Amino acid sequence: MPDAETAGAAPDRPDDLMEKVVGLCKRRGFIFQSAEIYGGFRSTYDYGPLGVNLLRNVKNAWWRSMVQLRDDVVGIDAAILGPPAVWQASGHLANFTDPLVDCLSCHQRWREDKIDGVCPACGGTTFTEPRAFNLMFKTHAGPVEDEGAVAYLRPETAQGMFVNFANVLQTTRKKPPFGIAQVGKSFRNEITPQNFVFRTREFEQMEMEFFVPPDEGTRWFEYWLGERFRWYTDLGIPEAQLRLRHHDPDELSHYSAGTADVEFLFPWGWDELEGIANRTDFDLKAHAAASGERLEYFDQASGERYVPHVIEPAAGATRTMMAFLLAAYAEDEVGGEARTVLRLHPRLAPYQVAVLPLSKKDTLEPVAREVLGMLQPWLMCDYDVTQSIGRRYRRQDEVGTPWCVTVDFDTLEDRAVTVRDRDTTDQVRVPIADLVGHLQARFAASEGAEPAPGS
Amino acid sequence: MPDAETAGAAPDRPDDLMEKVVGLCKRRGFIFQSAEIYGGFRSTYDYGPLGVNLLRNVKNAWWRSMVQLRDDVVGIDAAILGPPAVWQASGHLANFTDPLVDCLSCHQRWREDKIDGVCPACGGTTFTEPRAFNLMFKTHAGPVEDEGAVAYLRPETAQGMFVNFANVLQTTRKKPPFGIAQVGKSFRNEITPQNFVFRTREFEQMEMEFFVPPDEGTRWFEYWLGERFRWYTDLGIPEAQLRLRHHDPDELSHYSAGTADVEFLFPWGWDELEGIANRTDFDLKAHAAASGERLEYFDQASGERYVPHVIEPAAGATRTMMAFLLAAYAEDEVGGEARTVLRLHPRLAPYQVAVLPLSKKDTLEPVAREVLGMLQPWLMCDYDVTQSIGRRYRRQDEVGTPWCVTVDFDTLEDRAVTVRDRDTTDQVRVPIADLVGHLQARFAASEGAEPAPGS
Repeated sequence: MPDAETAGAAPDRPDDLMEKVVGLCKRRGFIFQSAEIYGGFRSTYDYGPLGVNLLRNVKNAWWRSMVQLRDDVVGIDAAILGPPAVWQASGHLANFTDPLVDCLSCHQRWREDKIDGVCPACGGTTFTEPRAFNLMFKTHAGPVEDEGAVAYLRPETAQGMFVNFANVLQTTRKKPPFGIAQVGKSFRNEITPQNFVFRTREFEQMEMEFFVPPDEGTRWFEYWLGERFRWYTDLGIPEAQLRLRHHDPDELSHYSAGTADVEFLFPWGWDELEGIANRTDFDLKAHAAASGERLEYFDQASGERYVPHVIEPAAGATRTMMAFLLAAYAEDEVGGEARTVLRLHPRLAPYQVAVLPLSKKDTLEPVAREVLGMLQPWLMCDYDVTQSIGRRYRRQDEVGTPWCVTVDFDTLEDRAVTVRDRDTTDQVRVPIADLVGHLQARFAASEGAEPAPGS
Repeated sequence: MPDAETAGAAPDRPDDLMEKVVGLCKRRGFIFQSAEIYGGFRSTYDYGPLGVNLLRNVKNAWWRSMVQLRDDVVGIDAAILGPPAVWQASGHLANFTDPLVDCLSCHQRWREDKIDGVCPACGGTTFTEPRAFNLMFKTHAGPVEDEGAVAYLRPETAQGMFVNFANVLQTTRKKPPFGIAQVGKSFRNEITPQNFVFRTREFEQMEMEFFVPPDEGTRWFEYWLGERFRWYTDLGIPEAQLRLRHHDPDELSHYSAGTADVEFLFPWGWDELEGIANRTDFDLKAHAAASGERLEYFDQASGERYVPHVIEPAAGATRTMMAFLLAAYAEDEVGGEARTVLRLHPRLAPYQVAVLPLSKKDTLEPVAREVLGMLQPWLMCDYDVTQSIGRRYRRQDEVGTPWCVTVDFDTLEDRAVTVRDRDTTDQVRVPIADLVGHLQARFAASEGAEPAPGS
């Protein structure tokens, strides 16, 4: 484990890494402030053309690892809006709160644990008694805004898996150990959102509930710690910038038999990307008691009936995207010229390939478009014709494109193109006929995987 | 165009198609009522293990067609929560309303245009004057529930493209004609949600705003009508169950220079999957006026400055998924035995492949798992070991799996497996070493595309 407590102290990281990445995100179209033309909407962000590609790739890499490549996990996509009964049973209505006080001088409202006894607005020192402020967004469904119409925006995706447990069990005929995975938006009315997209009111989660026989909880908890840590390193986050932090016994929820966070070395210090918790049978029992439904597993072979224990790896997609950006950011020199480069894993890069005709002349356009059309079914491609080829390489480096394919005047003769590597800047000449296979093989090599069959 | 006005009259469609598909969705885990263990949450649905795969495939097919395969469209992912200013400018605060009345006898609230003068609850015939009821869900962001904290859940994704127009233009250096695409959840507090997932309070949209020079609006409107109609037929909806319906002049919004709906022949009649509208410069001008920002394009080459016109193809992902299910549903006979089959396009099917060891015996497990592991990186796979092979084929047919791969005792000798086709039920023997390439070639053939290189 590295002993650096701030990212500025991590090797090769510029001191102003955070400002640089935030600036890059805005300048190149990764992340915009939401409703910016109206002065912005506090702590809410829109993902631009590059950001949406990166965010999709993060979520798809998670889904691939957690659902597609396994036969013991299935997915769901539950609704964001839900009735109070769900959040009553889960404990969120009673306990998902912050303590708020009103300043008696200026009547502004603050989080009691953040103001140090003095109103940040007017300096006042007398406040109301703290009141529990629920962090769930509340709305009304139906034509009348009364108590019976109250609905909440989910503050986490996890309850969708618990309330659908019996439906999934019955329709898939899975048996423990098996998991239910979900990727989707959640909402928390955070009083102190902070650190760019790290903590926002609207965010995206990647959560999985893994249901196991009660006596296998500890073993599967350890298994998922290893799997989830490896997911981040496989996708390019250096081990030195990651750690597993086990919660102390006094940090644990009363029902938890163990929790550990995957933490990343953010510029402000170690902070959480994902929590992995052994939640025992708490959630299923709570929903069974509240709903009157049997939420348990009956093994026909053994005649055994039990409430499974749950291991929950719960990651934040948007903050994970931010960690990938921070870890990928680098500044180096190419041919004596400074450049910025995002060393993103090819599976995550917003574009895998840029097709660049050497000149704007019409003679190169048809073959460049032919190459683009060949690659588009297989890889996300950018196409850029403006300014010098050197400028265009820099632009692609800055947004993490692993390979640039240059179409030049020789291409018209030899039906070959130049493939340039983002990290080494090495260039190789590849026949157009072999190009898809060549790039697929390089993509596969970047994950240590087998190339596509035949390529 | 077919003249049948109801789906029951369409060839090969059972009269009770709707009940059968809804029943299949519940029984096999496509769609569950949301919060079902608590009695459900009206008109809100959760997508189960098969439904989430199908819905993801629909959305990914759209994204692939609209963003990945084009270099004139980029994506974004804007926030769901937004400030009133956006909806003031778009006109939704003033006009996105239904007329509601309260019954003076029982005080229940109804949509005036749906009750025919008599209260459905008590038979009362006197009502309050109709009031405009806004269909946007309202909530509060921040610690105080006052007017300054009001936020709305977006009722459509489109405004995210308009308010980000200048940011996207600047960061991508695109020039008209170009588009901005988005897939995501939207919310409408519908008073009369209906027809399963056709009209729900929470739903998913696939929208694109295509910005063009003002004098090219009509041409691009016609272009997108053709492209979007073809998208549905390419993915397997018969032309006889689809039509383009041009809006009459008196149906058009005052700013629209033309609107047409892609309609599907639902069991209750023709209804909308997608609206394609020539919105002229209405939206950009409205946001420019309200925000004070310049939302226009300046062509440096020509010195020309103009507000682009917008062509908007706006589709519903969830209702489109439902149309694919309805169009795919069939009942036929195989070997004298009745079966239900979903003839889903392989790109949409929840699983592309099922791996089925002929017997549960341990001797087949290792090679069956080896085959599964080979296929999982390339295709969504199911793995099923229980009950007879015939029952398992039927189960896969019923959920639309195009290919079943059977591992039998001969496999242990010849290192080959049997690949069964869902639609023809034909079986061919394929060496395991060729299996990935074989299936990739069949997948490509199903779209009339080139096979993967080398396969």
